[in-house]
Amino acid sequence: MKKYQQLAQQIIEQITLGVWQPGDRLPSLREQVTISHVSFMTVSHAYQMLESQGRIVARPQSGYYVASPPSRKPPMPPAQVMQDEAVDINTYIFEVLQASCDASVLPFGSAFPDPRLFPLQQLNRSLANVSKTANAMSVIENLPPGNADLRHAIARRYAQQGMNISPDEIVITAGALEALNLSLQAVTEPGDWVIVENPCFYGALQALERLKLKALAVATDVEEGIDLDALAQALNDYPVKACWLMTNSQNPLGFTLSNEKKARLVALLAAHNVTLIEDDVYSELYFGREKPLPAKAWDTQEMTLHCSSFSKCLVAGFRIGWVAAGKHARRIQQLQLMSTLSTSSPMQLALVDYLSTKRYDAHLRRLRRTLAERKQQARQALLRHLPGEVKIHPSDSGYFLWLELPAPMDAGRLSEQALAHRISIAPGKMFSTSDTWTPFFRFNTSWAWGDREEQAAKTLGMLIREAMA
Amino acid sequence: MKKYQQLAQQIIEQITLGVWQPGDRLPSLREQVTISHVSFMTVSHAYQMLESQGRIVARPQSGYYVASPPSRKPPMPPAQVMQDEAVDINTYIFEVLQASCDASVLPFGSAFPDPRLFPLQQLNRSLANVSKTANAMSVIENLPPGNADLRHAIARRYAQQGMNISPDEIVITAGALEALNLSLQAVTEPGDWVIVENPCFYGALQALERLKLKALAVATDVEEGIDLDALAQALNDYPVKACWLMTNSQNPLGFTLSNEKKARLVALLAAHNVTLIEDDVYSELYFGREKPLPAKAWDTQEMTLHCSSFSKCLVAGFRIGWVAAGKHARRIQQLQLMSTLSTSSPMQLALVDYLSTKRYDAHLRRLRRTLAERKQQARQALLRHLPGEVKIHPSDSGYFLWLELPAPMDAGRLSEQALAHRISIAPGKMFSTSDTWTPFFRFNTSWAWGDREEQAAKTLGMLIREAMA
Repeated sequence: MKKYQQLAQQIIEQITLGVWQPGDRLPSLREQVTISHVSFMTVSHAYQMLESQGRIVARPQSGYYVASPPSRKPPMPPAQVMQDEAVDINTYIFEVLQASCDASVLPFGSAFPDPRLFPLQQLNRSLANVSKTANAMSVIENLPPGNADLRHAIARRYAQQGMNISPDEIVITAGALEALNLSLQAVTEPGDWVIVENPCFYGALQALERLKLKALAVATDVEEGIDLDALAQALNDYPVKACWLMTNSQNPLGFTLSNEKKARLVALLAAHNVTLIEDDVYSELYFGREKPLPAKAWDTQEMTLHCSSFSKCLVAGFRIGWVAAGKHARRIQQLQLMSTLSTSSPMQLALVDYLSTKRYDAHLRRLRRTLAERKQQARQALLRHLPGEVKIHPSDSGYFLWLELPAPMDAGRLSEQALAHRISIAPGKMFSTSDTWTPFFRFNTSWAWGDREEQAAKTLGMLIREAMA
Repeated sequence: MKKYQQLAQQIIEQITLGVWQPGDRLPSLREQVTISHVSFMTVSHAYQMLESQGRIVARPQSGYYVASPPSRKPPMPPAQVMQDEAVDINTYIFEVLQASCDASVLPFGSAFPDPRLFPLQQLNRSLANVSKTANAMSVIENLPPGNADLRHAIARRYAQQGMNISPDEIVITAGALEALNLSLQAVTEPGDWVIVENPCFYGALQALERLKLKALAVATDVEEGIDLDALAQALNDYPVKACWLMTNSQNPLGFTLSNEKKARLVALLAAHNVTLIEDDVYSELYFGREKPLPAKAWDTQEMTLHCSSFSKCLVAGFRIGWVAAGKHARRIQQLQLMSTLSTSSPMQLALVDYLSTKRYDAHLRRLRRTLAERKQQARQALLRHLPGEVKIHPSDSGYFLWLELPAPMDAGRLSEQALAHRISIAPGKMFSTSDTWTPFFRFNTSWAWGDREEQAAKTLGMLIREAMA
């Protein structure tokens, strides 16, 4: 093969790989000479050959452009990816989440609230303000534990609930997920036992798997939350190191623990010297009169690491969360410094700017009202279209509904069939390592309810009726 | 204690914790009633008591403000924190890094280049552009593997070097550090053997410790790089899973491997089926005529995960890096989804905007020129002020110098003494688990050289002479 043929083939390869896409301008002849270390003549020959093959087009006074769009492969039917029985929980969760990111799929399986409910304009204004004031040194100032003003603002929000949390014990993280992962890592070693709820946020199961920890999944009631007797038994029987749970608007069930139960939980864990890792990302999304307290409010012994974020109530894309880590704050900073180094500095500064406008609470009030209305609307539609045998469990906060198909139906199977109709749901087995929740699924009600959503509810009803027949 | 006394005490506690700082406005009487669930009278009494104690001041028509600045504790002398012989390497590194973040300390120990060398104005313009165009759904589109345009732009930069990397095998991460950590985790299990250089980037040692991996540190020469015979021996003797190293402008030594050695390295690892995790964050900072290729350029079997970032050459605060992961891309996306979820979306969009202006290469040329000049200046000053017994090893790229004190001197001790004079350096034992590098230290030459820097070089010279005496 001659040099110009080699070059042409290399460029075809790059086009196939997507390095150059249809409409992209290729390097000029001169640029290509520098890149490929070949003569001008060789490049010229190669480009002519590609042009004659219809792969690129020359535009006078402008250069060479990649020609026709390559024939795109049809997307793999998402239903298929779940037929492999050997998949582990991570792969399964990954597939479901990827499917719900596809813009053509109705995202009832998504964990995110509708981002159109967030104050995009004000946040963009804050971003623009940061772009005017950011200085060169702010990177270094915002290394762990994170921007001081932001930690201060978070401490004040705790104070509004009557909790005394020093800004010094707060570490800013890449969303609550990093906060939870670092917290878990700070208090465990591989092989340790950790208590989780059954069912629980799949991120907890993934974190345990990633950190090679052993899970004790304690029975958790749809309305009452974790079974404290079962928890006490587990604490007696196993050398447990930590307990990861959600006290407010639990994912996926939706309950909020009573204050009395939060107090008992904290006391029980303290008696066994077990650290509580409290995942509290939905606490702003209550529908009642008052923001519920976290379990940490009852903790007098620094045994609770309280993790939260702005991702579910203000902005997901900034990836800003935190942990109020008490005596563990220093260890968590160290772990962060060796895994992601720090959270991006302009994002922290933009949040500080936004919070200083004092619009946050008004936004939260609007958000709560809309989420409550939309949940009501979705519930009504589901009641209209799903067979009476499907149970919709009560939920008084957040944007999830927990639905139960008549046993022995498999919500995983329903999820596959629904995806073929461009509808995603989150099947129960994403939230547990046991089979208990096979007939259940989580339904995200944060989206505006229109014709397409109504049609989707009908389709779900039809699919369930077919499976029951 | 009466209710108003309790409330007053709680507010004092919050002031002590830093929730409310001098000059902050306290919640109004009415707001405090809502927060604390006490009567207006109780709040009023509490505030009066605090006012009479001089803790807060009332400003007419405005509210109550936190009074006098609390007496700040004097900062702990950084020298002291290193006298604990029991510290592990992470704690040691953490202390050194924290010390070099203190704005009053000259950061010759820092790993960051002077951020004033970065195009702040243009980056801010890009941030402002993003604030005009960001839309609500962009969060979801930028989940792993990250923004498509950004991956595309990175793929084109590989193409400029003649490397065919598909955008689909690129995963955007929180800096190169997350890329390296995820890569390591993707190809190892706790207990596995991993090869690193001796000395190596401390982030590698920390990652190994964090993931419970076992390190084989292979002898690495200041100019020639890793000893391939020793590497071959290690590969023969141990069941090695991965090899983490830097091929261009190695940290801390500064060498760049020859192309011939890169090719041999890749062949040797492939023969033993060992994955190469290539840390290539300094590759843009060459001083020669051409950007050096990564070892991945010689890899025909997808055995190399190539990790890099924009943090050392464009902007550190955005925290954007990537890995070209080949067949491991999918696994790495999964791991990211369960640890930090994704990189912040506006930061990715701002980089796409900046890269589209085509100013990046001109910036890099300027940056390289300045870094080369500053390195020359720093080297001259060190030659002037340090005793002749101190060896300054040659370095032809990047912004680090590697200095060697006459044995048996301890650069860790020098680091402690220097910190007492507000000067940080990075002692050799940060970069190794062995004692080999005790007399060495790394010196960051990226800072503008002025009187204060000149004085610091004199001080270092004086401290070294004292220790030698």
